[in-house]
Amino acid sequence: MEDPGNGGPLPPHHDEDTPPGTRDRLAGLPKGGGVCSRSYFVVVMVFVHVYIINVIALLFYVYYTNGSQQGDPGANGVSTSPEPPVPEPRARIQREEEGPHSYLPRLEGIRVGHRQKLELVQNKIHEIKTLSLKPLLFEIPNFLTVEECKLLIHLAQLKGLQASQILPVDGYKEAMDNLEISKADIFNLLDHNQDGQLQIKEVLTHSRLGNGRWMTPENIREMYSAVKADPDGNGVLSLEEFKKLNLRDFHKYLGNQEITMSDLVRNSQHTWLYQGEGAHHVLRSIRQRVKKLTRLPVDVVENSEPLQVVRYDTGGHYHAHMDSGPVFPETACAHTKLTTNETAPFETSCRYVTVLFYLNNVTGGGETTFPIADNRTYEELALIQNDVDLRDTRKHCDKGNLRIKPRQGTAVFWYNYLSNGQGWVGDVDEFALHGGCLVTEGTKWIANNWINVDPNKQRQLWFQQEMARYARDDNETQKDWTVDKSYKDLHIDL
Amino acid sequence: MEDPGNGGPLPPHHDEDTPPGTRDRLAGLPKGGGVCSRSYFVVVMVFVHVYIINVIALLFYVYYTNGSQQGDPGANGVSTSPEPPVPEPRARIQREEEGPHSYLPRLEGIRVGHRQKLELVQNKIHEIKTLSLKPLLFEIPNFLTVEECKLLIHLAQLKGLQASQILPVDGYKEAMDNLEISKADIFNLLDHNQDGQLQIKEVLTHSRLGNGRWMTPENIREMYSAVKADPDGNGVLSLEEFKKLNLRDFHKYLGNQEITMSDLVRNSQHTWLYQGEGAHHVLRSIRQRVKKLTRLPVDVVENSEPLQVVRYDTGGHYHAHMDSGPVFPETACAHTKLTTNETAPFETSCRYVTVLFYLNNVTGGGETTFPIADNRTYEELALIQNDVDLRDTRKHCDKGNLRIKPRQGTAVFWYNYLSNGQGWVGDVDEFALHGGCLVTEGTKWIANNWINVDPNKQRQLWFQQEMARYARDDNETQKDWTVDKSYKDLHIDL
Repeated sequence: MEDPGNGGPLPPHHDEDTPPGTRDRLAGLPKGGGVCSRSYFVVVMVFVHVYIINVIALLFYVYYTNGSQQGDPGANGVSTSPEPPVPEPRARIQREEEGPHSYLPRLEGIRVGHRQKLELVQNKIHEIKTLSLKPLLFEIPNFLTVEECKLLIHLAQLKGLQASQILPVDGYKEAMDNLEISKADIFNLLDHNQDGQLQIKEVLTHSRLGNGRWMTPENIREMYSAVKADPDGNGVLSLEEFKKLNLRDFHKYLGNQEITMSDLVRNSQHTWLYQGEGAHHVLRSIRQRVKKLTRLPVDVVENSEPLQVVRYDTGGHYHAHMDSGPVFPETACAHTKLTTNETAPFETSCRYVTVLFYLNNVTGGGETTFPIADNRTYEELALIQNDVDLRDTRKHCDKGNLRIKPRQGTAVFWYNYLSNGQGWVGDVDEFALHGGCLVTEGTKWIANNWINVDPNKQRQLWFQQEMARYARDDNETQKDWTVDKSYKDLHIDL
Repeated sequence: MEDPGNGGPLPPHHDEDTPPGTRDRLAGLPKGGGVCSRSYFVVVMVFVHVYIINVIALLFYVYYTNGSQQGDPGANGVSTSPEPPVPEPRARIQREEEGPHSYLPRLEGIRVGHRQKLELVQNKIHEIKTLSLKPLLFEIPNFLTVEECKLLIHLAQLKGLQASQILPVDGYKEAMDNLEISKADIFNLLDHNQDGQLQIKEVLTHSRLGNGRWMTPENIREMYSAVKADPDGNGVLSLEEFKKLNLRDFHKYLGNQEITMSDLVRNSQHTWLYQGEGAHHVLRSIRQRVKKLTRLPVDVVENSEPLQVVRYDTGGHYHAHMDSGPVFPETACAHTKLTTNETAPFETSCRYVTVLFYLNNVTGGGETTFPIADNRTYEELALIQNDVDLRDTRKHCDKGNLRIKPRQGTAVFWYNYLSNGQGWVGDVDEFALHGGCLVTEGTKWIANNWINVDPNKQRQLWFQQEMARYARDDNETQKDWTVDKSYKDLHIDL
């Protein structure tokens, strides 16, 4: 601190330090008095200096202890600046601390069979067992009590269930008519290994051919034979054989086939139960447990889909599928699309995490299968070999890598996406392919809690911001505009 | 801000705010003057209040932005309190920030083939490619420059290399004589699948039978035939056949076998290069890069083994092995044993991370193999099937899951241990089994940087504390007591 010194001319601008209003009031005060004005001036100067220096020092202190940890200030909200290639560990921690939005933790799997403990409800320790690393998949026995399971079934029945998939309608013909693509191009598209021939598994993996109907190698062979597509009967179509085909014959053949529910990709009934604020206390409590289990930010979980309760009767199944679609730049997520006005060429459900609850013990069958869990490599075509399609949960559940037997109250949960290495959602995890095996006896009740995250971080943050805004707004708009409402008429099946 | 008001008696203590020395000097100043003393007093009061309020506000700000992030102060050193079953994400973050000792970060693998970028040296971006998840294994091209590789080879040659393994000495007879265990018990111990018969692979996986010599199925068969162990010649020993055996015959047979270097587990030469403070700047720089790459705490890396430089001549190899032993409560780590006075029944090298550098391009062979990387399951016995021992790097390198071709300057690094789920080292990762394939032409030079961590956290922290203490002590003891010195005469091979 500088000594203000022994007098000398007063710099005029110091008088300006006092705000004008104050100066006017001061002017009204009696002048003079027992106290030395000169010494008071010096005291004022001392205080002014001490004050300024201290404030500067404190600001520096705050800046250096905080500022260096907080990254760029722009990262605190919706940031459009490109992220650094690999965050240093400290940078990663910072991101975790930026707020509940900007970092999505993942549980550690450690190894298959690893067990970790967690207090999901007060004074009750649950055990989380790692079932696989690809996908990152866990099992938690007794996540729900028997009473809670029964209640969920009851609530679902009260609300009423609907078919998860309906019998295909005749939209196939129009689709074919509108197809502006040459046969050679279709052939090339289907010919995965580019050997100039169409193997049956190439037809099976690529096609939406069945239009909701599940196609088996036998179906394809029967169809070939019906439309005389494969004269040499070797189960393989050459480009020549393919070119000779009339694709409408396929359609006609398929249209004439009698189809029952068991021929569909999914044969089940389901309904949705609201879990947001004001919901039944058991539904709220389950959501709290899911938050604690996944450690995901509150507003991510709260802005996710309601609980889906599913019933599979005897003969029910769900062939192996992904809960989320692949990540392309032009793909929109069903949930964030609500708040963006973009029109995207593709739309998919972006379900970062699936938490599946078994609501009853199934008498026969009904396991959840992960046919390629922890496989060394993922090869789409390796799923179908020698007429065995591992995705077929009516026929080949016994041949998959991992099968979970339903046990009332048990939860399993897994990540449908990989990490992007920076604390956010990355690519879809192809190993998360799963299905519901044929229920051979009795009924199977499950419930699904999906936690929706947009792989596009900006879109997700914007979505959450908008949802928070709608929740705050105390007007009529809000009542028409909750996630629950937006899902209310949902008939989308994945 | 309160208005101090229109005069009133001056509180005496306000005069005390001016330091005594200043007051004396002020007393010498001329009293009175054109400036109103009363108004000056008010200004002083305003400033005093503004100052105090601002300082308090700033202190609160500092406290709330910093204080809540810093965790409990007691956790900053060696903690002996039991850890909670599963740390909440926030708790984990705190632990990371407790200090450099208490949290060991791991790189994210994401998926095989994933690439992340990292600035290891200024203005140079390196790419880290994920090679496998089990073990967590990465490749970094151009980690070293060609000149650095050459220098390491040169320094190693100057220091002189020694055989990594010497031909077995005759300690086998005594070991057999001291064996106080019945034949039935030995049989039972070897009979892994408990089918009452000894398959050749059971003998191979279990035994230290070879006493440093690598045993192949053919070796076993030849030995059986030489000592007439397997009269029916089916390659399988029944308990009856085993009981009839004289184990000394085995020993005699093995003792009479001519053994060359290529029959050993490891056929190479190596030396150690000091990397601590004061070491050659290239060795220091490599250590810095290793720190940056692994993100492990400075004192963990600095208190690790020196750099091991290894030469494999043509015909050289290293059969598949683990760099670290299994974790048992009674196992001591070679490095922390230096600071504990415990006598442990087992001792092993605890190498959390291996960073392996390729120092030259090998003309033929010499790949690094991870025979079971990313296998779905680990089964010790599955390593040997139908006379094919996947651990055999002279014969079966082509059949392993993953093979890395040496490329000058490339580093590969992997974790030999799993995480324990709480930011520390857990169990050994059995998938980290690896070996050096036969060098078919030319010479192969590599270097190994091992980062030593004791799975027993307390022992590791104690070790680091002691090492820090010795480094601080500026007396003679210190000179005799550095990690380098303790490794100086190291002949341990793993």
